[in-house]
Amino acid sequence: MQLQAAIDRLSLDDAAALAKQLDGVVDIVEMGTSLVKDYGYHGMITMRAAVQRSRLLVDLKTIDEGAYEFTQGFQAGADILTVMGASSHATIAAVAAVTQAAQRTMMIDLMETTADKQAAISDFPEAIYCLHHSTDRQDKMAPTATVAAFHQQFPSLKHLAIAGGVDQAGAAALATQGLTDIVIVGSAITKANDPAAAAHDLMEVVHK
Amino acid sequence: MQLQAAIDRLSLDDAAALAKQLDGVVDIVEMGTSLVKDYGYHGMITMRAAVQRSRLLVDLKTIDEGAYEFTQGFQAGADILTVMGASSHATIAAVAAVTQAAQRTMMIDLMETTADKQAAISDFPEAIYCLHHSTDRQDKMAPTATVAAFHQQFPSLKHLAIAGGVDQAGAAALATQGLTDIVIVGSAITKANDPAAAAHDLMEVVHK
Repeated sequence: MQLQAAIDRLSLDDAAALAKQLDGVVDIVEMGTSLVKDYGYHGMITMRAAVQRSRLLVDLKTIDEGAYEFTQGFQAGADILTVMGASSHATIAAVAAVTQAAQRTMMIDLMETTADKQAAISDFPEAIYCLHHSTDRQDKMAPTATVAAFHQQFPSLKHLAIAGGVDQAGAAALATQGLTDIVIVGSAITKANDPAAAAHDLMEVVHK
Repeated sequence: MQLQAAIDRLSLDDAAALAKQLDGVVDIVEMGTSLVKDYGYHGMITMRAAVQRSRLLVDLKTIDEGAYEFTQGFQAGADILTVMGASSHATIAAVAAVTQAAQRTMMIDLMETTADKQAAISDFPEAIYCLHHSTDRQDKMAPTATVAAFHQQFPSLKHLAIAGGVDQAGAAALATQGLTDIVIVGSAITKANDPAAAAHDLMEVVHK
């Protein structure tokens, strides 16, 4: 399993400084959607410059105009880009084509998708499917149960990620379960007193 | 009915120049999602400076972290912001609260939402509900039939908009039908040889 650290809602200077602290410590550094919408393409370039050893995911949350957004995101240097599962199938197919041509990676964010919608977009076996619990929701997700249910429904999808309120205990349970490629952690790292130390601790749990 | 002109996929200089040409000609100038993700908050400020007489809609396409994104968008000066209907109800409720506090306007983008999802988020009577056909889809939407079907399903929702491949004939039919508040037009204006003239012509159709 790999650890992705999501950076959000900071000034670009602070986000880049935090990214440098986490670079080479975590497997994947995420430039969160808030940073994309606040700082745009220039922000992506800045974050790419800060992240040299880890992979960089830019959380574009594309939901339309797939080819344009993914072309921009990969041109800015992202290794992984996100598309919403709630998009039309045509949008997901468009970003899949751009991703394949760029020889990089796409993540399909399943936030708020129904089982029917998930089935309708389950034909991208190279993609990472991300089980994602909206941060605006007050309820909580049970990580291992969520992953197990999705795996049972879609056994042919081999690349799974999970995001949304996963803490150290949740990450440990996911590592033991062995079905998840990437666990995405935000504030448990970025709001820690020592983010690099928190990331180190989580890396031990994730890679044990 | 009002006319909204969507500006997308240009350099910020060109987008601002086009916005100035359309300012005061159309009812609403839209800063499209491509410009948000390319130019961020700085781009919003630039577009706000360019649009002084028309209203400015920033097509944020918020799908999570609703309060943060809407607070940023209104702070940048937008009159209207968009949230995806595919969001969690909690996200839409969060942006509704920010919108009410700012005394501005929100638009719920219904792209790719099912009838069940539309019913689940039909409790925001002050919002503009936008029937939106993904630009990545190859099929076409019949504007008046789409509006009529939605109106029949949700008669209590009084503010409707429509986007996605609407041309002059479609706009004329919508104006005659009389159920739509806002018709959103992109390339039929922005890719015209003379965008201001194309906008003038469409304004006559929309406001006849």
